[in-house]
Amino acid sequence: MAEAGRGPGSPRGNGGPTVGALGEAGVLARILPRLAGAPALLGPGDDAALVAAPDGCFAITVDTLVQDQDFRLEWASGHPASGFDVGWKAAAQNLSDVNAMGAVATSAVISLTLPAATPVSWVEDFADGFAAAVRGLGAHRCAVAGGDLGRGREISATTAVTGDLEGRAPVLRSGARPGDAVAVCGRLGAAAAGLALLESSVALDGPDLPDGLDLPDGPDLPVGPDAALRELVRAQCRPHPPLDAGPRAAAAGATAMMDLSDGLARDVPRLARASGVDVELDPAALETAARRLAPAAEALGADPLEWVVTGGEDFGLLACFDAAATVPDGFAVIGSCVAGTGTLRLGGRPVLEAGWDHFEES
Amino acid sequence: MAEAGRGPGSPRGNGGPTVGALGEAGVLARILPRLAGAPALLGPGDDAALVAAPDGCFAITVDTLVQDQDFRLEWASGHPASGFDVGWKAAAQNLSDVNAMGAVATSAVISLTLPAATPVSWVEDFADGFAAAVRGLGAHRCAVAGGDLGRGREISATTAVTGDLEGRAPVLRSGARPGDAVAVCGRLGAAAAGLALLESSVALDGPDLPDGLDLPDGPDLPVGPDAALRELVRAQCRPHPPLDAGPRAAAAGATAMMDLSDGLARDVPRLARASGVDVELDPAALETAARRLAPAAEALGADPLEWVVTGGEDFGLLACFDAAATVPDGFAVIGSCVAGTGTLRLGGRPVLEAGWDHFEES
Repeated sequence: MAEAGRGPGSPRGNGGPTVGALGEAGVLARILPRLAGAPALLGPGDDAALVAAPDGCFAITVDTLVQDQDFRLEWASGHPASGFDVGWKAAAQNLSDVNAMGAVATSAVISLTLPAATPVSWVEDFADGFAAAVRGLGAHRCAVAGGDLGRGREISATTAVTGDLEGRAPVLRSGARPGDAVAVCGRLGAAAAGLALLESSVALDGPDLPDGLDLPDGPDLPVGPDAALRELVRAQCRPHPPLDAGPRAAAAGATAMMDLSDGLARDVPRLARASGVDVELDPAALETAARRLAPAAEALGADPLEWVVTGGEDFGLLACFDAAATVPDGFAVIGSCVAGTGTLRLGGRPVLEAGWDHFEES
Repeated sequence: MAEAGRGPGSPRGNGGPTVGALGEAGVLARILPRLAGAPALLGPGDDAALVAAPDGCFAITVDTLVQDQDFRLEWASGHPASGFDVGWKAAAQNLSDVNAMGAVATSAVISLTLPAATPVSWVEDFADGFAAAVRGLGAHRCAVAGGDLGRGREISATTAVTGDLEGRAPVLRSGARPGDAVAVCGRLGAAAAGLALLESSVALDGPDLPDGLDLPDGPDLPVGPDAALRELVRAQCRPHPPLDAGPRAAAAGATAMMDLSDGLARDVPRLARASGVDVELDPAALETAARRLAPAAEALGADPLEWVVTGGEDFGLLACFDAAATVPDGFAVIGSCVAGTGTLRLGGRPVLEAGWDHFEES
């Protein structure tokens, strides 16, 4: 996501108290009940939480979302962005990393850095969004086990999530072999198309649809009467990593796996280099994905294939399977591994490694 | 620590590259070798790391250090502050939380948010300090298992640490009973005295002492010829949580325990409320601690007892033991629990709950 290029601000308040007025203990008292879900062996309130690891080991990952880098307080188009969506994404992207190992999430700890002027309502929305994602994405074993609150000049949210492999071997990025099928589970380019819509002048305001698309995930999104566009905005604001698919792919013998957080063009070469193979993607398979983005591409005059190839934040799974294996339900084959050293080719031509680098100027 | 009240800046460079110039992969390549220590089952480089949990459960904690809130790039006195010290403290304060449960640290994951203009040398120093703390504090089983790099307007470092109880029951804050002895392991007020020195106009520059006090923890600290002052500055910059003492206290039957991160006046009432007791502290015991701070108190014209009672960031242990139990080596009894509901008294008089609140204006 491009840097917004303006000074750090605070979310709009609703007239309620700020975190500075309520203090650390007061804010915690407001948000901890909202985050309650699956119980940990010992939850928030002591120096550390305790989480079960019946497998004798656990997976662990950490990621940070920073204001104006990874999320906005207001979209470039002027649409308000909600704390709910930031909380949802904080949960989703970390649950996705555990999923990509073939593990089931068991706990999350959250560290929130907030300007004192942040409305408490924004933080409550964040907690609601986080909890809704844990519940809505099916992470039923994942306890919000603890956290930390501190002050800074900009909002940032760091989440660490742990996972249980349930006796399975972890699926690494490095196990793909020449001849393996390359498959994906989840949308390609949908979150990028949604981002483009949110940053565009396309009219997204309008009467809410009575279709329940936004239920039970939280407040309505700022999208007008077009259900196809609404779905893409939703993919950006509330991504749905397929949390059942990671363990299923592991059980089905996936040779390598990772989640698609930065886009095919950047993520596939990472898996290819780790495995020591080249990957050939099938243009026809990507065209199929691009056709699903046609409504947004038409509205914006954009090339949907660009979103499919370079778009990040879909949090689907990229997995490789032995050619003799049955690719599990929900995965679509989009290419294959060949002998090589990490090059991604599309229709025989090398793909420039484009995508999201946190320190690249945009 | 008080907010510095100036705009966010970047650490001084040494003419080397910035993180923006080197990019995410380049920075990772520089710092991962510096963080190598105990091996995880699977270390950095995949979607998640894997850590052993032979006990069938694990402790987990998370904390964030934010520029100008929790650390400075330059002390108010003008002395430069180093990335090494920030890395040391990031490790120490999280290792301390696991210690306070009676657990032994098994892994750390680190998420660093950095302005693009941050010199890579600052990040290398941070990694060196983090690794030195893990090694120097004796966390020999703690693997730096993974992390995340991202961009923001100010530097912040979030660390999650996991721990192994090795079959012991966790020691909670809530187990103290009337009649229990209240003991501490570690310094009281030393970090606060060191902070006051660093923010004062007391001359701290001078010839380095050939006493090896700063070895093997890293570069020399900005302290002059007075070894007593140097020791206090060191307590602020490179705190030493007593990592052997948490498991020993647990094995000795501690009824309640927590680490002293925010100072006696704030932390003791937390334990007291969780346990449903009052705590009476012995003025004579605290006077003994205050006498150790005399050199700084004299240099600054300050009251050393104030540092002992309200000073945070020492990361010692506060633990309670049954009156019939033997208090383990290294712990000094400073008071006792009596029937009550969470009040801290010193010499019979209630102590105002003063100390560090992240959202309090200072």
